[in-house]
Amino acid sequence: MNRLQLFQQIKSKNSYLCVGLDTDLHKIPKHLLNEPDPVFEFNKQIIDATADLAVAYKPNLAFYESLGPKGWESLAKTMDYIPDDIFTIADAKRGDIGNTSNMYARAFFEELNFDSITLSPYMGVDSVAPYLAYKDKWAIILALTSNESSKDFEQQDLATGEKLFEKVLKTSKSWATAEQIMYVVGATKAQELIGIREIVPDHFFLVPGVGAQGGSLKEVSKNAMNDHCGLLINSSRGIIYSSPDRDFGKAARKSAVAVQQEMAEYLSRYCK
Amino acid sequence: MNRLQLFQQIKSKNSYLCVGLDTDLHKIPKHLLNEPDPVFEFNKQIIDATADLAVAYKPNLAFYESLGPKGWESLAKTMDYIPDDIFTIADAKRGDIGNTSNMYARAFFEELNFDSITLSPYMGVDSVAPYLAYKDKWAIILALTSNESSKDFEQQDLATGEKLFEKVLKTSKSWATAEQIMYVVGATKAQELIGIREIVPDHFFLVPGVGAQGGSLKEVSKNAMNDHCGLLINSSRGIIYSSPDRDFGKAARKSAVAVQQEMAEYLSRYCK
Repeated sequence: MNRLQLFQQIKSKNSYLCVGLDTDLHKIPKHLLNEPDPVFEFNKQIIDATADLAVAYKPNLAFYESLGPKGWESLAKTMDYIPDDIFTIADAKRGDIGNTSNMYARAFFEELNFDSITLSPYMGVDSVAPYLAYKDKWAIILALTSNESSKDFEQQDLATGEKLFEKVLKTSKSWATAEQIMYVVGATKAQELIGIREIVPDHFFLVPGVGAQGGSLKEVSKNAMNDHCGLLINSSRGIIYSSPDRDFGKAARKSAVAVQQEMAEYLSRYCK
Repeated sequence: MNRLQLFQQIKSKNSYLCVGLDTDLHKIPKHLLNEPDPVFEFNKQIIDATADLAVAYKPNLAFYESLGPKGWESLAKTMDYIPDDIFTIADAKRGDIGNTSNMYARAFFEELNFDSITLSPYMGVDSVAPYLAYKDKWAIILALTSNESSKDFEQQDLATGEKLFEKVLKTSKSWATAEQIMYVVGATKAQELIGIREIVPDHFFLVPGVGAQGGSLKEVSKNAMNDHCGLLINSSRGIIYSSPDRDFGKAARKSAVAVQQEMAEYLSRYCK
């Protein structure tokens, strides 16, 4: 999916909601455990309940890998089930080079047909370039994350006066255009989003941390929206685990509607 | 496996060779493609041919994931097949936090029973701590890698005067002892190994890049060996693809013997 198609979807749904499919056998409604593939059955009902409200789905690979081959099958079925016009993100945070990155790109972009993958920038351009060889596929690079220990390295000051995450933004934006690169930027740093938006005015940001992790949707939208929206705001637990019972799809929809309505307002106010 | 057990294995085999199982359907001997599980069959014969020479096996996850659920099954069978007294490394280069890292730890340490996993440090201690909760399991943290673009970020100068990879070493060595943390250090930086060894005198280094990537086994051993050896030198292609024919196991053994004999010499010379 290209940037224009993504923006058109955002406009038609009046939403920039990404639903995180962090599907955990210990958290899904108990009755699903009798299904042949509980993880897929859960995802299917979440997708049915939210597909007109979400512009992206983001399966978190760890949750599928922890189930072994069966988890990988649930993931493949989930990817088949997500409508083609919805953006998909492999939240894999991979970071490797050369032939290894080629293999990951093949796994996620060809086998599973994801639109994008999250990547760690530590090893430099070598670990991102193989993904950029795919047209209309995206590398989503970790910039400033919302966790406490982002100060360990991401926020370290460099000799040039900039912080490491700023260097990551400045360096990596030359690797490809805003048609192929997005950035992960944590929502708990709403104030810092202003500075980040100045460095990369055109790029989409994937923003986790709204809701459960304490970020404010309004602040993030106000500080970082651009003329193509430029934001995908992820919510996982806050949507998919809205009810522990058989009505979980309906409850997820209710949570998603609430977020989407707020987003509609911010789109009309800040997307200029 | 703990550090003492690893060192005892190194002494008894007179080797610090790690064999990288970068098993690629496009590169393994053609006759194996008729097997029900060509990847496992290849790994099995490589393990049979090298188990008395290698102290560690390192499956590169990308190669298995690119094959979908079937690849995951080949990996599980390979892990079952590797003798229990040989150290195993999940070369996954994961880097995520909280619940996600817990899931990865469960996948690799519990489901697949790996002894260790490679990790990217970008997000800080939050992305490593969940793995350290497992006794006798190891986090192998990327420090200075051998690829060209390690200069993009890893080698950047910080305001404190140290380079980012040095900061990673200094900060992360406080997260646990040398019984639980190792570092990935590229072999093409043999000279820099001296400085790195000063920062972390006791830790094991996983060193890729000897052979195909141009590093010198002698230089690395001379500059970075400590009194517990402290080195696992990985070779993948240089061992496993030593012959494209039916004799690939025998050829792999021959390559591994050559490396092991060189290692025996360096152990007697530098392991003090």
